[in-house]
Amino acid sequence: MTDAPISRRALVAGAAGALGAHTLRRAGLAQAPALAAPPDPTKVPGQPTSALGQRSTFERPRRIPSASGQGVSLSPLQDFCGIVTPADLHFERHHAGVPTIDPHRYKLLVHGMVERPVVFDLETLKRFPAVSRLHFIECSGNGSAGYRETRPDLSPQLVDGLTSTSEWTGVPLATLFREAGVKPGAKWFLAEGEDAAVMTRSIPIEKAWDDALIAYGQNGEALRPEQGYPARLLLPGWEGNANVKWLRRIEVADRPFMTREETSKYTDPLADCTARMFSFVMDAKSIITFPAYPVTLPEKGWWEITGIAWSGRGRITRVDVSTDGGRRWAPAELEQPVLAKCHTRFRHLWNWDGTEATFSSRAVDQTGYVQPTLEQLRKARGLGTHYHFNHIRAWRVRRDGAVSFEPEG
Amino acid sequence: MTDAPISRRALVAGAAGALGAHTLRRAGLAQAPALAAPPDPTKVPGQPTSALGQRSTFERPRRIPSASGQGVSLSPLQDFCGIVTPADLHFERHHAGVPTIDPHRYKLLVHGMVERPVVFDLETLKRFPAVSRLHFIECSGNGSAGYRETRPDLSPQLVDGLTSTSEWTGVPLATLFREAGVKPGAKWFLAEGEDAAVMTRSIPIEKAWDDALIAYGQNGEALRPEQGYPARLLLPGWEGNANVKWLRRIEVADRPFMTREETSKYTDPLADCTARMFSFVMDAKSIITFPAYPVTLPEKGWWEITGIAWSGRGRITRVDVSTDGGRRWAPAELEQPVLAKCHTRFRHLWNWDGTEATFSSRAVDQTGYVQPTLEQLRKARGLGTHYHFNHIRAWRVRRDGAVSFEPEG
Repeated sequence: MTDAPISRRALVAGAAGALGAHTLRRAGLAQAPALAAPPDPTKVPGQPTSALGQRSTFERPRRIPSASGQGVSLSPLQDFCGIVTPADLHFERHHAGVPTIDPHRYKLLVHGMVERPVVFDLETLKRFPAVSRLHFIECSGNGSAGYRETRPDLSPQLVDGLTSTSEWTGVPLATLFREAGVKPGAKWFLAEGEDAAVMTRSIPIEKAWDDALIAYGQNGEALRPEQGYPARLLLPGWEGNANVKWLRRIEVADRPFMTREETSKYTDPLADCTARMFSFVMDAKSIITFPAYPVTLPEKGWWEITGIAWSGRGRITRVDVSTDGGRRWAPAELEQPVLAKCHTRFRHLWNWDGTEATFSSRAVDQTGYVQPTLEQLRKARGLGTHYHFNHIRAWRVRRDGAVSFEPEG
Repeated sequence: MTDAPISRRALVAGAAGALGAHTLRRAGLAQAPALAAPPDPTKVPGQPTSALGQRSTFERPRRIPSASGQGVSLSPLQDFCGIVTPADLHFERHHAGVPTIDPHRYKLLVHGMVERPVVFDLETLKRFPAVSRLHFIECSGNGSAGYRETRPDLSPQLVDGLTSTSEWTGVPLATLFREAGVKPGAKWFLAEGEDAAVMTRSIPIEKAWDDALIAYGQNGEALRPEQGYPARLLLPGWEGNANVKWLRRIEVADRPFMTREETSKYTDPLADCTARMFSFVMDAKSIITFPAYPVTLPEKGWWEITGIAWSGRGRITRVDVSTDGGRRWAPAELEQPVLAKCHTRFRHLWNWDGTEATFSSRAVDQTGYVQPTLEQLRKARGLGTHYHFNHIRAWRVRRDGAVSFEPEG
């Protein structure tokens, strides 16, 4: 079933129907606000200006700490409507808590295979020519809930809440490397965090010459503590863990350091008993965020399917949507601007006929890479893997309008 | 003095100098944080995950309520580093306080010269095909502090803090107008707010067919109360006041309604005793946000001048920077993405020789319009005007590095 072309008139006539009696359940809306609304807001003076705004007391978007209790909180993807993630709702992943770092005492050491080891303080980092770019960061393990333990009662937040997009500002790592003078033969660098896990990862030095940043800004202001305040490594498109937060040390070398977080962890065992190591790039992926569990559609008719797509290899060039369980696909509209290594919002009009249906999205990036099916991914990786779950996600709507997660879609 | 070309090496060698002893005063940095940092953050567990993040206790960006106490708060432009304005720091302008509106009871009436008067509730608005776009909103009166009362101790926030950029999400007004069926001969519409001022403005109907939105999303989530929760009119590039917040009613007509806010206010008296009415579009403008008062540069050498430029007529195509009081100009670098009717960040490297200097920026937009000098603007508008102050702003640095606002720059 491919959605037939519709006139805008037909669409709007359908959408403006009597929805009043069928309230659509959306997440993030508070039922008992702290500040009650007056019957007629025009008859009472409103609230005065404030130094810092607050959300409406009717809105309660919240991150969800993962059941494991291990330094993970998931971002409420289903509550979002654009591509920017509000900073206080950006997902979290830390291995020993969020350290408190005094920006006045912050130092970043660059040493190893360099001509001149250098220590940068925060003001010095901010003095270098800066760049600002919109990029997603995604935890390497994002999507694991939909890979093995298949449950229908998963929301977009629970399926894929470990990806967020921010406008990041910082100094290109290449600038600092030119300052320190990287020696011939250097091929990797170690990035080390100042958290209690002393997170360490080895990064190929080409990434520094390409687009790596030392970021100190997030959505126009200082980084949030959970995202590495006062400064972090930003490796656009690469797995979150390698984007070391609370960055304190960079050591340039001619080989990888084989740290715990790239040998014991963040490596994928394969079925043939080999391992997929240093699998940095997050492959193209997408998820429909509406309609999705726990939404119940109140009636059949025209609905706008919407979601986000992203690729660590560059721009999203197409997102296909299927409403018949993956048999036929139609291209969705992509919201501008479509930026490299950044969430891209897609939209697709769907005339739901009131019968059971499975709907899903499939992202394609500028390299031509197509988001794989669950079957394809399982075949390539086996069931032992813990990372890079970028298979197609699906949702199922029942006749009563209830939507559930459909792992086998 | 045009800045001579420099090698990146020379630049970074200069920038990485011993800044330690000369701490640069930046605004927004708290001196007495609530949460002290441990001497070695790697030796103590960090903070746990949270449902909602908080800024570092070392960071204190704040809006400033204007001295008039009349429903204005200014956004801290000097603390920002990209183009997105964090939602809780978006400037405020309201005429009778911020109303509290229950989204479950929210209604938008569209009536007047239409075939079918319609009432939309919030869920119905959200059901229509949506769009998300990054746009600035600027108060029509922004910049008045630099026009008449010339004082050197004005920060970017005090000079121009009534402009902010957000990613706005909503339904095109054209969609709602097609639903209601606008009658032939309709030329204007009234937009009415549900605040205690019952803000009303008349808008040419062409703007609805062009790019007007009924916006319910801001930076990926629900509008903030100060920006019109649960829904507002968004007229990209047009003066803030016309972007009616807490929108409850749209009346289509064949003429403007001549409301108080477009006759007594938001009209510019001119020197020849005529008036400039319905001057909706915000013309091209720019301001340097660093270095700027109250910054003191600790030493001569390479500094990156940065700021924002914007135009209500479309994209910024060029920003020129002068460091000799406007005699010579050099093009600044524009940060990508450069979007229509959106803040654009510009950057320009400057080798300060330690002598007194006046530096300023001049925006050019896609129509070829060039930001005027103060003298040109005063000549065109006289001193009686209260709106649309888009003349060139300048800053002066003294030999001791202290930077001050230079209204006559």
